[in-house]
Amino acid sequence: MARILITSGPTRQYLDPVRYLTNGSSGRMGKALAQAALDLGHEVVIITGPVNVDYPAAAKIIPIISTEELLAAAREEFARCDGVIGAAAPCDYRPLQVETHKIAKNGQPLLLQLVETPDVIATLGSEKRPDQWVVGFALETDDARFRAITKLEKKHCDLIVLNGPTAMDAGDNDIELLDREGEVILSAHGSKDEVAKQIVQVIQAKLIAHFQLLAKE
Amino acid sequence: MARILITSGPTRQYLDPVRYLTNGSSGRMGKALAQAALDLGHEVVIITGPVNVDYPAAAKIIPIISTEELLAAAREEFARCDGVIGAAAPCDYRPLQVETHKIAKNGQPLLLQLVETPDVIATLGSEKRPDQWVVGFALETDDARFRAITKLEKKHCDLIVLNGPTAMDAGDNDIELLDREGEVILSAHGSKDEVAKQIVQVIQAKLIAHFQLLAKE
Repeated sequence: MARILITSGPTRQYLDPVRYLTNGSSGRMGKALAQAALDLGHEVVIITGPVNVDYPAAAKIIPIISTEELLAAAREEFARCDGVIGAAAPCDYRPLQVETHKIAKNGQPLLLQLVETPDVIATLGSEKRPDQWVVGFALETDDARFRAITKLEKKHCDLIVLNGPTAMDAGDNDIELLDREGEVILSAHGSKDEVAKQIVQVIQAKLIAHFQLLAKE
Repeated sequence: MARILITSGPTRQYLDPVRYLTNGSSGRMGKALAQAALDLGHEVVIITGPVNVDYPAAAKIIPIISTEELLAAAREEFARCDGVIGAAAPCDYRPLQVETHKIAKNGQPLLLQLVETPDVIATLGSEKRPDQWVVGFALETDDARFRAITKLEKKHCDLIVLNGPTAMDAGDNDIELLDREGEVILSAHGSKDEVAKQIVQVIQAKLIAHFQLLAKE
């Protein structure tokens, strides 16, 4: 049995007390992955942004709002986990300045300076112990496979799940799972529950079983 | 009996196929207002952004995503309605340029030029027939009452509901209802259902009954 951290859902980066940047991540893939991992007898910790899904009651749930909160919670929880699946879609830009009062419209354009938020999976990947594994997600619209492999390397992932923007807030998903050699080791299409089951089966065979074998040697 | 248009929920303004600007409006106030209006025997049309509430089945529901779509649908529907309650929180800035491909991170700040979206309630207010009424909402953090009255005038509203950012995505609400003389004609606090009931009762007494009386003369 392994203890698996799953990040799920979107994050929000506020401009002022009302407005924020985000994306349409629904948390459904995170929920499906959690259920698939629980079904194989693993322990699951979910760190989730604001979503409207009901996560499995057997999982430990940690709600967060911003990418910075996601990172802080993920670093703390990952220390006690065997691996992480980064199914969240953290908002990757934040306003450089956050206004404490609601920005009033004045008829003029508003120039918003955005800076990148910390990369949660890259941080966990660079800090992971030799006995820990990291599975990332890449959502790409162009040069998808090339970009996914670049991300896998840069973020020190063991595997990366490649999907497109149509996956967001949808019931179905269409993914490729790539390994460190850049090989497509799984192509899956169907409901998020079915796709998640296949992804977790590969993680079980390639990562969990592998690391458990190493631990015994 | 009146035919009432209610706008509800947030809108989204996309930067690229994944990222968007929005706010935490839940649609719960719109739902509560719709139910209160239906309970008084009125017909209700709801134009709503992406939310997770279940609107009353007796209402006609028109889903939209962006503020531009909200405006287009609202102009069309308002022509067949007696009045409108603007409970939506339309995203009031949009990126000047919308990228067709996902913006790739490059480690550099991103300068985002935002321009104001059309003001839905102001547009309906300026286009309304003499037999139509308009109730706006103002969400203010500073100089709240002053700004609300300014908005009421600028948007040609008959009444305006003033609330704070704590109302967003919350079960409760704390409002003041202001008339064209700047008088607070209702202060209400409690569940959104209870507050909505009180707002609709005032609309019934001050606007619906008034315009029906005028129509008979």
